[in-house]
Amino acid sequence: MCRWLAYSGSPIAPEKLIYEPEHSLIDQSLHARYGVETVNGDGFGVGYYGERELPPAVFKDTKPAWGDQNLRELARHVRSPLFMAHVRASSGTAVQQTNCHPFRYGRWLWMHNGVISCFSRLKRDLVMAVEPELYPSIEGSTDSEVMFFLALTFGLSEHPPAAVGRMVGLVEETGRAHGVERPIQMTVATSDGERLWTFRYSTEHRSPSLFHSTDPRHVRRLHPEVFTPMELSEDTQVVVSEPLRDLPGLWIEVPESTYTTSERGRFEMQAFRPAPPD
Amino acid sequence: MCRWLAYSGSPIAPEKLIYEPEHSLIDQSLHARYGVETVNGDGFGVGYYGERELPPAVFKDTKPAWGDQNLRELARHVRSPLFMAHVRASSGTAVQQTNCHPFRYGRWLWMHNGVISCFSRLKRDLVMAVEPELYPSIEGSTDSEVMFFLALTFGLSEHPPAAVGRMVGLVEETGRAHGVERPIQMTVATSDGERLWTFRYSTEHRSPSLFHSTDPRHVRRLHPEVFTPMELSEDTQVVVSEPLRDLPGLWIEVPESTYTTSERGRFEMQAFRPAPPD
Amino acid sequence: MCRWLAYSGSPIAPEKLIYEPEHSLIDQSLHARYGVETVNGDGFGVGYYGERELPPAVFKDTKPAWGDQNLRELARHVRSPLFMAHVRASSGTAVQQTNCHPFRYGRWLWMHNGVISCFSRLKRDLVMAVEPELYPSIEGSTDSEVMFFLALTFGLSEHPPAAVGRMVGLVEETGRAHGVERPIQMTVATSDGERLWTFRYSTEHRSPSLFHSTDPRHVRRLHPEVFTPMELSEDTQVVVSEPLRDLPGLWIEVPESTYTTSERGRFEMQAFRPAPPD
Amino acid sequence: MCRWLAYSGSPIAPEKLIYEPEHSLIDQSLHARYGVETVNGDGFGVGYYGERELPPAVFKDTKPAWGDQNLRELARHVRSPLFMAHVRASSGTAVQQTNCHPFRYGRWLWMHNGVISCFSRLKRDLVMAVEPELYPSIEGSTDSEVMFFLALTFGLSEHPPAAVGRMVGLVEETGRAHGVERPIQMTVATSDGERLWTFRYSTEHRSPSLFHSTDPRHVRRLHPEVFTPMELSEDTQVVVSEPLRDLPGLWIEVPESTYTTSERGRFEMQAFRPAPPD
Repeated sequence: MCRWLAYSGSPIAPEKLIYEPEHSLIDQSLHARYGVETVNGDGFGVGYYGERELPPAVFKDTKPAWGDQNLRELARHVRSPLFMAHVRASSGTAVQQTNCHPFRYGRWLWMHNGVISCFSRLKRDLVMAVEPELYPSIEGSTDSEVMFFLALTFGLSEHPPAAVGRMVGLVEETGRAHGVERPIQMTVATSDGERLWTFRYSTEHRSPSLFHSTDPRHVRRLHPEVFTPMELSEDTQVVVSEPLRDLPGLWIEVPESTYTTSERGRFEMQAFRPAPPD
Repeated sequence: MCRWLAYSGSPIAPEKLIYEPEHSLIDQSLHARYGVETVNGDGFGVGYYGERELPPAVFKDTKPAWGDQNLRELARHVRSPLFMAHVRASSGTAVQQTNCHPFRYGRWLWMHNGVISCFSRLKRDLVMAVEPELYPSIEGSTDSEVMFFLALTFGLSEHPPAAVGRMVGLVEETGRAHGVERPIQMTVATSDGERLWTFRYSTEHRSPSLFHSTDPRHVRRLHPEVFTPMELSEDTQVVVSEPLRDLPGLWIEVPESTYTTSERGRFEMQAFRPAPPD
Repeated sequence: MCRWLAYSGSPIAPEKLIYEPEHSLIDQSLHARYGVETVNGDGFGVGYYGERELPPAVFKDTKPAWGDQNLRELARHVRSPLFMAHVRASSGTAVQQTNCHPFRYGRWLWMHNGVISCFSRLKRDLVMAVEPELYPSIEGSTDSEVMFFLALTFGLSEHPPAAVGRMVGLVEETGRAHGVERPIQMTVATSDGERLWTFRYSTEHRSPSLFHSTDPRHVRRLHPEVFTPMELSEDTQVVVSEPLRDLPGLWIEVPESTYTTSERGRFEMQAFRPAPPD
Repeated sequence: MCRWLAYSGSPIAPEKLIYEPEHSLIDQSLHARYGVETVNGDGFGVGYYGERELPPAVFKDTKPAWGDQNLRELARHVRSPLFMAHVRASSGTAVQQTNCHPFRYGRWLWMHNGVISCFSRLKRDLVMAVEPELYPSIEGSTDSEVMFFLALTFGLSEHPPAAVGRMVGLVEETGRAHGVERPIQMTVATSDGERLWTFRYSTEHRSPSLFHSTDPRHVRRLHPEVFTPMELSEDTQVVVSEPLRDLPGLWIEVPESTYTTSERGRFEMQAFRPAPPD
């Protein structure tokens, strides 16, 4: 299990979310409250969109996030209108940079919290379903990266929710074929730099936690003392594994089997359903 | 704060204590119960005495102990009659190999859990009190290593409890001179390969937890099912930050202001008192 | 490209070969003479057989070998009758522990210097040819590890030279099917703890360098001053990417398309030929 | 020994100098030509000034620069008008982040190539000469960092060349007092974000190599094909351990016992002399 956050809005320094809140992502790396594991110390990653012409930057390391000096520097010096950050708790695969999230392909970023059950049993069939042209770009050994490449195979760059639906459909079908009852559990965030999608789903409808921020204008009315220093613009959208602060009215749970879309201040939630993979 | 264990007895593989018990040192690295911090993920180290003619081997890394493959290998393949293992939670100094415990000087090993309060204020005076010939051997930046070199300066290799007493006396004197009220908190283990000493002390008499194992014969009578596979010899002595199992009668708390001596199956506890440094 | 050495003989400390000779493996990690690359700084590994009942120990790290303190400790404290050591120069795949050699499966160790040309183009077909039961045990992303698992698929544990021959045959066949002219270049060492095999082969018959040590009795007569301190037993066999010393008569080149077998002091060389994979 | 470069001019991405030239800093990390060591693989660092109100960012790692993915990302995504980059070859002190260059204090950056001879013998006296208020900010164990803190002690932020002169004077005086004949060898770069100073000096007048770039207008006339893609502005100043390209007229050696000052397109060289430390 892991913890993550995704931000879309006016450009800010990622430290505003990664370090500053009382239950920041750093605090979640040491003391997660909603996950199976309290410690997320098996590496971390930040992916951010900056200047238009370049693909997103990705900074990853296998060290625990809480003590990493480079993360601290980067989180202070970068300014980005759309970024993701992830702290990892390995569910068995190696602690190595190629297993850290977010994963990148072209302009796409992808990160995941959850698990494909009995992944080592299903892995071969799933990897075989990845488009052969994409196959050599798989660098690590996680279920999360295979999910990403399956979604790319199924058209992530054209219609993300449909592609993720087919990916989940394939994982469930493959799982059932191997006698795995509850093949998938996930919260996922993905972006092309313009829009941000997040997904909450699991076969047994007991998905990892996921929350989205409420309208910043609403928040400011409720807690003016807190948010002034955060300089949140009106188009701010944050989606997180766990609330960053214990303040009523700030965070709303994303329901089971739901996906969200954030784009320039618009935020929408819709039902998410797995689809037959072909 | 940190967690550690020290073993003396018939040669065993360190994994018997580092991995196998339900609240093994690995479990303590993720879920410590008695310390200020629950997570001890800022590096680890093992020091062990093996073949007579060599100084002890030291294996240290900055990664969390729980996921380290090399530690797993070493803990299985080594056999040692006297070893120490330590998992670190940095109290501010850098996460780097030279700050991992145990520290080694000649045939001596040293590890520490605790803190010198306001160390950055006291550091210069303390480091200046280290014997100039020893000074260049200080490699890291921790209070723990400075404590070791002060103890060496005060005669650790001749009379360990007296040398540690003078080290503590100097820290307390220096602390008071700088207006630090409770300068030191510690549990320490040190060895020359023949004997093992541990110390529990703090200025305010609220020291970090420390426990020692009871007589293995007694334990076998109480819990024959548990200890048969551990093949504990009759001369086994284990001192630990936290009990490795939740079984009544196995572990006894080392009292405040006490030091212990283990040597070939003999185990003694005596009162520990700081001494004037000169 | 990489550099490696493999030892079989009376138990010695690996430092005798890894650190002590003038052109030791450590020196080769900084200043290789025969390879394409002079620097082999992308991680290292040691695998050694120790006590009979355990699988071999493997110690790997992504740091350069030359500065690693843990390697120094291990190389001094271990004693082993059969070990391998490898320094890596990545040919493009990630610098991570799961890509460091030697690889292990059960009691088998495997290490490689060389390359499968255009590996990313051939990878999918080759990985698909790995026995599905073995597939989930592939942890890294190198060509070398895929070669190992193909050899295991083709019966490495029954008849190593034949299995390696079929592996090479498959790589060449697959390469040709994808328009790769010279698909493979390799020196390989593999062992089950009793015997040690090494292989030198490349499609174009321009293989990476490989040398074996001459009979220790012969060496002692030639250079008594050098080898006394190395305490080489009469059954010593060493195979290396590059000679460890510049002394005439010590090292003999393993010819192209040859494999060697070392077992309790017996050393044999035979012709190596790729075989049709099925 | 190490290799470094320092840039001042219009904002550029550091990859223009770190990766792109044929003998880029990355190439120098593997194949240095002018240094004692050809390999500079014991960590690296980049320090850069960005937005006005923040201290400079520092990104350091202990891995070799050549294979580091994060460095590649940062070097592409950052834009800075004044930055430094350094690849390290340890002269004995530990490979750890706190020993990587550049060092930072407030708005000041400092990096060094060279050595204080017999540093372990002189270290205590030199460290004692550091202003006690500054002392706790020393984090690593290198001679280079002690040189920085001595320069800060002697007024680096008021008059850099004078402060560096007094630092060198103290090192030479201390060295002579301990019987060290040639106490110091150095090229140093330091900056406050506005100006950039570099120094070339050694007691025996055999200093490590140092070169500065010629006027970009001049370069463009000589090699228009090369520099168009580099988009060098007219105020570009680069100082490097080794020329980044083998083109005549591009690089001019900084003479022995000289310091340079770069400020908004102005470049000056002046004689450097050690001064009595007090």
